[in-house]
Amino acid sequence: MAAERPSRRRRGRAAPPPSGEPPARNKTWLYGRHAVAAALANPRRRWSRLAALPAQEPEAQALAAAALALRRGGGAPVALLEREALAALLPAGAVHQGLALEAEPLAPPDLDTLLRDLPAAAPPVVIVVLDQVADPQNVGAVLRAAAAFGAAAILEAAQGAPPVSGTLAKAASGALEAVPLLRVVNLARALDRLKTSGFWVCGLDAAAPQTLGQIDLGDRIALVLGAEGSGLRRLTRERCDHLAHLPTRATGATLNVAAAAAVALYQVTQGRTAPPPST
Amino acid sequence: MAAERPSRRRRGRAAPPPSGEPPARNKTWLYGRHAVAAALANPRRRWSRLAALPAQEPEAQALAAAALALRRGGGAPVALLEREALAALLPAGAVHQGLALEAEPLAPPDLDTLLRDLPAAAPPVVIVVLDQVADPQNVGAVLRAAAAFGAAAILEAAQGAPPVSGTLAKAASGALEAVPLLRVVNLARALDRLKTSGFWVCGLDAAAPQTLGQIDLGDRIALVLGAEGSGLRRLTRERCDHLAHLPTRATGATLNVAAAAAVALYQVTQGRTAPPPST
Repeated sequence: MAAERPSRRRRGRAAPPPSGEPPARNKTWLYGRHAVAAALANPRRRWSRLAALPAQEPEAQALAAAALALRRGGGAPVALLEREALAALLPAGAVHQGLALEAEPLAPPDLDTLLRDLPAAAPPVVIVVLDQVADPQNVGAVLRAAAAFGAAAILEAAQGAPPVSGTLAKAASGALEAVPLLRVVNLARALDRLKTSGFWVCGLDAAAPQTLGQIDLGDRIALVLGAEGSGLRRLTRERCDHLAHLPTRATGATLNVAAAAAVALYQVTQGRTAPPPST
Repeated sequence: MAAERPSRRRRGRAAPPPSGEPPARNKTWLYGRHAVAAALANPRRRWSRLAALPAQEPEAQALAAAALALRRGGGAPVALLEREALAALLPAGAVHQGLALEAEPLAPPDLDTLLRDLPAAAPPVVIVVLDQVADPQNVGAVLRAAAAFGAAAILEAAQGAPPVSGTLAKAASGALEAVPLLRVVNLARALDRLKTSGFWVCGLDAAAPQTLGQIDLGDRIALVLGAEGSGLRRLTRERCDHLAHLPTRATGATLNVAAAAAVALYQVTQGRTAPPPST
């Protein structure tokens, strides 16, 4: 019931469309070396134009050739642009590293499909749930941490979520291609759906008495993180099976949401498999 | 021998100078709510001008009043600026949240002084060492994680280190006021100095066979992190007592240096004090 996302476009189309056509309304310019290379290496990612500074031409040509071989078709040439022309395609101050890619958004699976197709990898299976994290750099950085620790997906409410922009993709450093980013209309219902699929839902809350390491969360874990400052909304908190805090040492000093996600993912994926030696 | 920093200016001067004087060459505009509020609440921070958008006037007046009471003197009024005028003082795209503060740099202690005055807090005492991390946002984010986990200081080579700018302070979200940021001419010699002071020096290296949690690092720990991509330099690696990796699960996916610092700090400060329950 929680699978609200209407998009069910087939992913994995073969060839990118030829370049030169007018940009579709939903296309986005991805930028930065890792974000562009990962998108080109993702056979599910459809793209139309690869732009590069002249100094990056060899790298761009190699990436484009690999991408076209992967997709067995297409023929979008690399567009060499001067610095001003490339910058004009991107947000002010974007650190593009000489590479930009006009791409269509990925179509993530809906929640039911994701849950049906969960990998039979070594447990635990972890889904990161973001409650109103609005900053695209933070969402991108959470994606990067999620990829590093092998999380199965990121789930967030569509309302208040930032656009899946080049800024988000740059912060994700390629992880946008690796970790499905699902957006749902009703986050509380999605949490219920996770619970009926065997997930323990644990919200991170600085005021919780227990630490994350003190809770046995089993083999299917949903980690819920709120926005910096405001934290979890009441309705979200009430849906959690557990609330836990990360044991920091300084009063008042807080972790960025992406750092908190990395620490929490480390705890639930590694903390229990690699206990430190006793001193 | 490793205390190369020449600056020994006394910290803790009482009153900020009156506003309206020409800006000193070494002053920096800090911006963003947390960075500005923390600087004003830090009695060691000297500042000259507080600028705010009209909408932030009440907040700015309250911060300025608290800052002046803290310093028992001074009288810098809040300058109300229109959005364009405020933006013109700051880097393009700076997320200033309506507040900016022209401040003098902090004078961190030199390494010998830091080591002499290390707090007698509950162990472990942790110093984070950065080897050529050039991005100011990353250094700021590492500061924030260091503050949250109670690290005693950040140490980095002066060469290649970013300026202590408003961008760095914004990413640190106030932690620049809480954690000393020391810059040394010779990082290898500084590591030797730490070792003679009883620190175990552990470098994070993805190729190391052991995980960080498998190493007993005692009560004085220096965690050394390299730049993303290039990692630790050879000379730095050779100075380490131990090398360890963080056990991520995905091949090729990496953590941002600030996320890695947060996870490593969590491991060495909390991992051994809060073992997770056995399942």
